[in-house]
Amino acid sequence: MPIRQPVPDPPFNVVRASHVEFGVRDLDRSRAFYVDCLGYLVSDESRDALYLRAVEERNHHSIVLRRAEEPYVPALGFKVASEDDLDRAAAWFAHRQLPVSFPDVPFQGRTLRTADPHGMPLDFYFRMDQAASMLQRYAAHQGARIQRIDHINCFTPDVQASYDFYTDLGFRLTEYTETDGADAKLWAVWMHRKGNVHDLAFTNGRGPRLHHIGVWTAGALDILHICDVMATSGYLANMERGPGRHGISNAFFLYVRDPDGHRVELFTSDYLTVDPDLAPIRWSLVDPQRQTLWGQPAPKSWFEEGSLFDGVAVREPALAAQPIVAR
Amino acid sequence: MPIRQPVPDPPFNVVRASHVEFGVRDLDRSRAFYVDCLGYLVSDESRDALYLRAVEERNHHSIVLRRAEEPYVPALGFKVASEDDLDRAAAWFAHRQLPVSFPDVPFQGRTLRTADPHGMPLDFYFRMDQAASMLQRYAAHQGARIQRIDHINCFTPDVQASYDFYTDLGFRLTEYTETDGADAKLWAVWMHRKGNVHDLAFTNGRGPRLHHIGVWTAGALDILHICDVMATSGYLANMERGPGRHGISNAFFLYVRDPDGHRVELFTSDYLTVDPDLAPIRWSLVDPQRQTLWGQPAPKSWFEEGSLFDGVAVREPALAAQPIVAR
Amino acid sequence: MPIRQPVPDPPFNVVRASHVEFGVRDLDRSRAFYVDCLGYLVSDESRDALYLRAVEERNHHSIVLRRAEEPYVPALGFKVASEDDLDRAAAWFAHRQLPVSFPDVPFQGRTLRTADPHGMPLDFYFRMDQAASMLQRYAAHQGARIQRIDHINCFTPDVQASYDFYTDLGFRLTEYTETDGADAKLWAVWMHRKGNVHDLAFTNGRGPRLHHIGVWTAGALDILHICDVMATSGYLANMERGPGRHGISNAFFLYVRDPDGHRVELFTSDYLTVDPDLAPIRWSLVDPQRQTLWGQPAPKSWFEEGSLFDGVAVREPALAAQPIVAR
Amino acid sequence: MPIRQPVPDPPFNVVRASHVEFGVRDLDRSRAFYVDCLGYLVSDESRDALYLRAVEERNHHSIVLRRAEEPYVPALGFKVASEDDLDRAAAWFAHRQLPVSFPDVPFQGRTLRTADPHGMPLDFYFRMDQAASMLQRYAAHQGARIQRIDHINCFTPDVQASYDFYTDLGFRLTEYTETDGADAKLWAVWMHRKGNVHDLAFTNGRGPRLHHIGVWTAGALDILHICDVMATSGYLANMERGPGRHGISNAFFLYVRDPDGHRVELFTSDYLTVDPDLAPIRWSLVDPQRQTLWGQPAPKSWFEEGSLFDGVAVREPALAAQPIVAR
Repeated sequence: MPIRQPVPDPPFNVVRASHVEFGVRDLDRSRAFYVDCLGYLVSDESRDALYLRAVEERNHHSIVLRRAEEPYVPALGFKVASEDDLDRAAAWFAHRQLPVSFPDVPFQGRTLRTADPHGMPLDFYFRMDQAASMLQRYAAHQGARIQRIDHINCFTPDVQASYDFYTDLGFRLTEYTETDGADAKLWAVWMHRKGNVHDLAFTNGRGPRLHHIGVWTAGALDILHICDVMATSGYLANMERGPGRHGISNAFFLYVRDPDGHRVELFTSDYLTVDPDLAPIRWSLVDPQRQTLWGQPAPKSWFEEGSLFDGVAVREPALAAQPIVAR
Repeated sequence: MPIRQPVPDPPFNVVRASHVEFGVRDLDRSRAFYVDCLGYLVSDESRDALYLRAVEERNHHSIVLRRAEEPYVPALGFKVASEDDLDRAAAWFAHRQLPVSFPDVPFQGRTLRTADPHGMPLDFYFRMDQAASMLQRYAAHQGARIQRIDHINCFTPDVQASYDFYTDLGFRLTEYTETDGADAKLWAVWMHRKGNVHDLAFTNGRGPRLHHIGVWTAGALDILHICDVMATSGYLANMERGPGRHGISNAFFLYVRDPDGHRVELFTSDYLTVDPDLAPIRWSLVDPQRQTLWGQPAPKSWFEEGSLFDGVAVREPALAAQPIVAR
Repeated sequence: MPIRQPVPDPPFNVVRASHVEFGVRDLDRSRAFYVDCLGYLVSDESRDALYLRAVEERNHHSIVLRRAEEPYVPALGFKVASEDDLDRAAAWFAHRQLPVSFPDVPFQGRTLRTADPHGMPLDFYFRMDQAASMLQRYAAHQGARIQRIDHINCFTPDVQASYDFYTDLGFRLTEYTETDGADAKLWAVWMHRKGNVHDLAFTNGRGPRLHHIGVWTAGALDILHICDVMATSGYLANMERGPGRHGISNAFFLYVRDPDGHRVELFTSDYLTVDPDLAPIRWSLVDPQRQTLWGQPAPKSWFEEGSLFDGVAVREPALAAQPIVAR
Repeated sequence: MPIRQPVPDPPFNVVRASHVEFGVRDLDRSRAFYVDCLGYLVSDESRDALYLRAVEERNHHSIVLRRAEEPYVPALGFKVASEDDLDRAAAWFAHRQLPVSFPDVPFQGRTLRTADPHGMPLDFYFRMDQAASMLQRYAAHQGARIQRIDHINCFTPDVQASYDFYTDLGFRLTEYTETDGADAKLWAVWMHRKGNVHDLAFTNGRGPRLHHIGVWTAGALDILHICDVMATSGYLANMERGPGRHGISNAFFLYVRDPDGHRVELFTSDYLTVDPDLAPIRWSLVDPQRQTLWGQPAPKSWFEEGSLFDGVAVREPALAAQPIVAR
């Protein structure tokens, strides 16, 4: 278990996980799910795309839905602290022979598109169009009253390698799962930039693939309410796991699948992690309360299914260790 | 303080407070308040009236809004246990020289219209049209997610007389306020039929007038949310008192005024009172925690303003004692 | 499916489900569970027994724990409306050749001990010692902040027979489960006296046995909190089912097992049922949302295990139909 | 209104507001308030001092209570990111002729004691003894279940000067209040380091004095519960303001006074502010919803009273503008 010290002065300053784009096959069906059911606000829409934000967000979008033949994810969006950080990031990735381009991205300023060594596509940007905060326009809070995007969770075929790479970029470990015994191996890691449990997490599995995005609600009752809404308005089958309390991160959670299978975690009540000397919390892979403090194991789909990145080959994980899975 | 024993076998069986009609000057404006803001469901509407119910209610309506030149309340609606109870009630009121008629009332079966000795108009009925319960149609729960009507609270010029009259009708006392000293006088009473703190309450004041109807929410957070909604969508001035916790009844409350000044209390968390030997709780008029457990006194308007009953003369109260009023 | 009309004038007036006694093998261990963990208040204790009440209750006890060699339940306690009702009840049971005695019961007035035709033991009483209400002594609210006992749920070998018997006693049906098809059979019934979904429920199974007592909390967050407490203080294995939302009754629930296996349901958010013409809600036995609105089936133990009544023989159920059971 | 750009590379790296010490006249009385009522955990205690932490905190203490003849505050504690940052801070303050010393502070590593130009005493440290996180020891969560310290709020005689000074130290403005008109003046500022609305706030008034520390709860119901507890266990007079919703910061709040008058804000539900380009929100001093979204003005004591810093002279504010004060 080579856990490393955090890197206090990374090569460029990533602020936080910012947004994700989902390829969807039926935009109306996806709109019904995200807007009418979950309560997302529409910042912009065209024939082919829908730009969504949550009630607290002043960024133009944290979810983009784009009409597609097949579900996919083009890239994961991270905000950096300045335009200079973009240039430093481009240089850093280029130096490592990783792809570097600056595609035009609507509603955003300069956007660096690159990838990590597993091929996981990454977008970095500093400027995004700003929209009105709806935080104190309470009459517009609907559904789960989602406040903001919180984090991105991915499958990786090599957790140790992903952990090492993002540690170099300044991501700091808060919790991790490893196998037991003398030659313990990392099985999952939770890493942050913004000061709570995570901006980015990796789980051992066929990857790279997106496992889920996590979105923040103000409290557990908002999550119970959306359970009631989904269960009684045609979305029962979209409720994959929970509600429950994670041992890891202490979060109260619900995992739902959108009409194309993209996974969204509604999430609340983790904790502050800004202290640079915060000691990461270790969990054993076979601790049942790791997954769920209250004991219920996650279903098989939760461990196996994820969203593909556009055009990125997937590898089997190096580590064969298995968590506890619900029958 | 002549507190009496409950009457176990009243002359007819009143089940509960059921509904109220409000005369309103602008039906669209009232609809915006009750439906768009508070979240009431529309059971029926015409050019001149709107019939509303809350999410748990299968009765066709618990609030009727009717276009009127001036705000008024025609009568207070109570459900009785059977058609026979209606006949027993008619005989009982007629025997006491109180008015008795059976007007046609839309969406209701036979309806007895009468009045108490102070002239407070009462409607009794057994049958009402039934509507679909929306309790498990959670996507339709909006605003304060009001569950049901809970109670009716009135000003009376003579609390002791009102208490005696409704005790004869089988209403049971749960809490009361009286003046201190040797010759204590009743200043307010809370009386029930359905098994919680009240279906009907009386407060000393110019009357008879309607003070408010109380409507039930599933929890305190629904009330905090509607505070946020009202405060940020043009209804700040309609928030009259609260949120807070009553000492009396232990209820968490918010008092709001509709566009015509009719008062609605959003209310939750009182207690079960079905035991026939439940001892009523006495409060001193000068106990500040009586009004609000957390200490804040009610504003002057709350003690002075109320809705007039249609064509009913109002008298000054016999008792001059005053509660604590916010400056 | 012979569903009957309610009996408006039953032979005697049962007010509500009131209390239960549990035989327990280790009183200290049970005290730790009920008092230290769940937060029950101790009204009285001796070397051999512990009398408990919840924060709203003025009755001396709603749970009695008594030291015993083996777990058992001696009788189910119901409050009646007067001493005269006790005499009417005794006469009614005696007339039907059912057992009638008046044992001395500590802290209660005259107590009629009898049994229903399946041998399920029943205690009826009118007077119980009164204790201070702790409802507004908030510093004493601990654990799940349980407010009061709500209901009693039993296995019966013949749901139709139990339904008929308690209908005669004035219990009113609110919801029921039946098999599908031409010759539908009752599989479970929920019946009330006090005005919410139930005081007494029956499920098809080996019986008579006690399935659980249901106790009321003020809101869902109290139930989530006790999940967190139990899961992290040695009671993880005592969490049997939930938290979740029942389709039936709309209640938010958690089922826990005490150290002797007696089952307690923490429960909130059902609805008002006082209207005599309230139409019962039918559920099909194979509707998965009947059990849990959000879809999770109950575990096998929940359908099979229950508490034995002291000295009462158990019969297999007549009806072989099976609900959906979690693997 | 000279609002400045944030300083991206401050002279040293302040992580967050960390702790405060309160001089108290009766340690047992203060213990009853903080531990028995509010639910703080005791990390260490001696005859003369009590070290407290909240349930999420791994730092040894966020509140120190020390026996004293008169109430006072010796210094405000801030965590920096490294030992090197301490040295950079010492050099920076020394360069500006501000006092610099390194007193021994129990349970902390090297601690720099200095002061800002108004004489407000500041402690900076990097290392503190670590204690067990009680976040998932839910049985130990009592009272308001306070999670962690959030911020420190002070009176200053010159808001613009304080704003400028802490801007230089890297604190970033999130919201501010100013007077209206052509020559607008800053009346209050909210500034952060850790990524939510504030670590440090300043209000115009006689100063420097401590106005309050803000402590974080997981949700609004924890705050309503502590209102109920305080109001019914002898602390009614300690409830100074709220509960309510601030317009500023969107926080749900309650202000309480400890037995020596030190003010604590229980606080939840503000928002994420990590984006370096987050635009500060301006409020007019005369906007009533600035103070309280729901309209209630704050009491006079809230605007006038505060804790003195040990041996620090207090000046009248330069700006005479007044907010709306409750009569």
